[in-house]
Amino acid sequence: MPDTAASPSLPAFPDLLDAAARIRPHVRATPVLHADALDELAGASLHFKCENLQRIGAFKFRGACNAVFALDDATAARGVATQSSGNHGAAIALACRLRGIPATVVVPEGAPAIKLDAIAAEGARIVRCAPNMRARDAAVAQVVDESGATLIHPFDHPHVIAGQGTAAMELLASDGKLDAFVAPVGGGGLLSGSGIACRALSPETEVWGAEPEAARDAFDSLASGQLITDRVPDTICDGLRGHLSARTFALIRRDAKGMLLADEAAIRESLRLAWRHLKLVIEPSAAVALAVVLAHPEHFRGKRVGILLSGGNVDVAALPALIG
Amino acid sequence: MPDTAASPSLPAFPDLLDAAARIRPHVRATPVLHADALDELAGASLHFKCENLQRIGAFKFRGACNAVFALDDATAARGVATQSSGNHGAAIALACRLRGIPATVVVPEGAPAIKLDAIAAEGARIVRCAPNMRARDAAVAQVVDESGATLIHPFDHPHVIAGQGTAAMELLASDGKLDAFVAPVGGGGLLSGSGIACRALSPETEVWGAEPEAARDAFDSLASGQLITDRVPDTICDGLRGHLSARTFALIRRDAKGMLLADEAAIRESLRLAWRHLKLVIEPSAAVALAVVLAHPEHFRGKRVGILLSGGNVDVAALPALIG
Repeated sequence: MPDTAASPSLPAFPDLLDAAARIRPHVRATPVLHADALDELAGASLHFKCENLQRIGAFKFRGACNAVFALDDATAARGVATQSSGNHGAAIALACRLRGIPATVVVPEGAPAIKLDAIAAEGARIVRCAPNMRARDAAVAQVVDESGATLIHPFDHPHVIAGQGTAAMELLASDGKLDAFVAPVGGGGLLSGSGIACRALSPETEVWGAEPEAARDAFDSLASGQLITDRVPDTICDGLRGHLSARTFALIRRDAKGMLLADEAAIRESLRLAWRHLKLVIEPSAAVALAVVLAHPEHFRGKRVGILLSGGNVDVAALPALIG
Repeated sequence: MPDTAASPSLPAFPDLLDAAARIRPHVRATPVLHADALDELAGASLHFKCENLQRIGAFKFRGACNAVFALDDATAARGVATQSSGNHGAAIALACRLRGIPATVVVPEGAPAIKLDAIAAEGARIVRCAPNMRARDAAVAQVVDESGATLIHPFDHPHVIAGQGTAAMELLASDGKLDAFVAPVGGGGLLSGSGIACRALSPETEVWGAEPEAARDAFDSLASGQLITDRVPDTICDGLRGHLSARTFALIRRDAKGMLLADEAAIRESLRLAWRHLKLVIEPSAAVALAVVLAHPEHFRGKRVGILLSGGNVDVAALPALIG
């Protein structure tokens, strides 16, 4: 099936099985943690899949690794380009380093220092651009034109989505039957892949997306049936400011039970709770999944709930502002 | 053999096997984590045994659980008492709650709020006293006199030492041969138990104790061959302000290769490094083990090194001052 904007090709469960086999030598099988105090607070049994403990500190390495290692040798040799102010950039950089091919990451001015450092530490070339979509697209197009590099989009890419779904596969394999599964939503790659995994392995598991109230484009897209891409989000969750694509919208409409919202105060409180009771550093974008479980107990009380902690890349210097 | 001050009874490896079986239903088998960036920094392969992810957020639950569950029913029914400004108090409180017996914890004024809250949250009775040894001992003696409770010392107790050693047993079982193993030293219960485990399971593993330069009583005790107990330590490592007992001194002299020191700045830097690269919240007392590995590369470069991260109970509000 050709991949067009009107009818994008959708990855399916066999693509996740391929991804799991392809990335196994490179990714960490991250632990699943529990905390008595959080179970008590939620009135539920919470199973935290700790992708903040994944290489580069985020689940993004799974999808990037799958996409980079799926390239044929001739294509791979020309390198990979992407645009990312965040974890996907570092993930592409590490995956390319492991494959021994060049990576170029287009980064808008204003990106967090910790994420820029992580990209540079993996040896990728960084190209700066103005912090708007047009400048980013132009800079990436120029890199691709000049080098013949392959563009790997942060979420609108079948191999990326399939790779992200392997985290939910691992969780379902390790912790038995889950009544519900919750993952944060920015562009929707993680929730899309997770939905494919649950649909195949545990169809009775209800799959929920978690979104900041201040970046509720996916919530409103699902409610209206119309893909919304023109919002300007304003949230501390720097990883969740993107919009769905036609591909992730289609997958999430099909596989997710729904979207749940949490406000900024609840997200900050969940950051504190994770530090205190899980002893884990998570980034604001990861905290939103715990926040919606605590904010919407009607869906989770008494149940076994998987919560995907998506990443842990937060500047130590930013702590006082986040927890104060 | 009678247990006297001059000739204290020393736990041995069969006691650790008993402990492991006794506490298995109650403790978490904590994960072992790795971080590429820290391996690079140390020039070694570092295997972090994450006891900050243990119940009550510290390895102390292992020893307390073993000691509480080793009591016969009639003795247990009269309850347990202990003195602790820290993790041992919460550990005793949880172990007693699980066994369904009363716990009393004598806590000196000035103990960190997070540790007091943890003791109270497990339902133990808290008795406050002045912050000196004499007042603590008097308060504990009164509790024991009045209730017939059994005193379980934070480290100078064979069952406690045996329980603490189970963490090293798990690490050796999960991560294969280690050239070196490093654990922090306060009263020495953790290092004593770890030494017994390594001596039995992997005698070629060099066992090192890690101590703050500002609380170097164990270092000087080993160097002089004389047990030093009259120092007044001044370190951010609130869990490492105690001194060895005759029992832990004897075990550490027998089983440890030596003690290594790190200054306060290096301990703070290791807190930051754990935050950034392991995505873990650890307390200052845990950071000292990483700090000595980085400060003394001559003992660790090119080797496979186990590092016991002892706990993660640090007030979120105190973090910026510690790592800022």
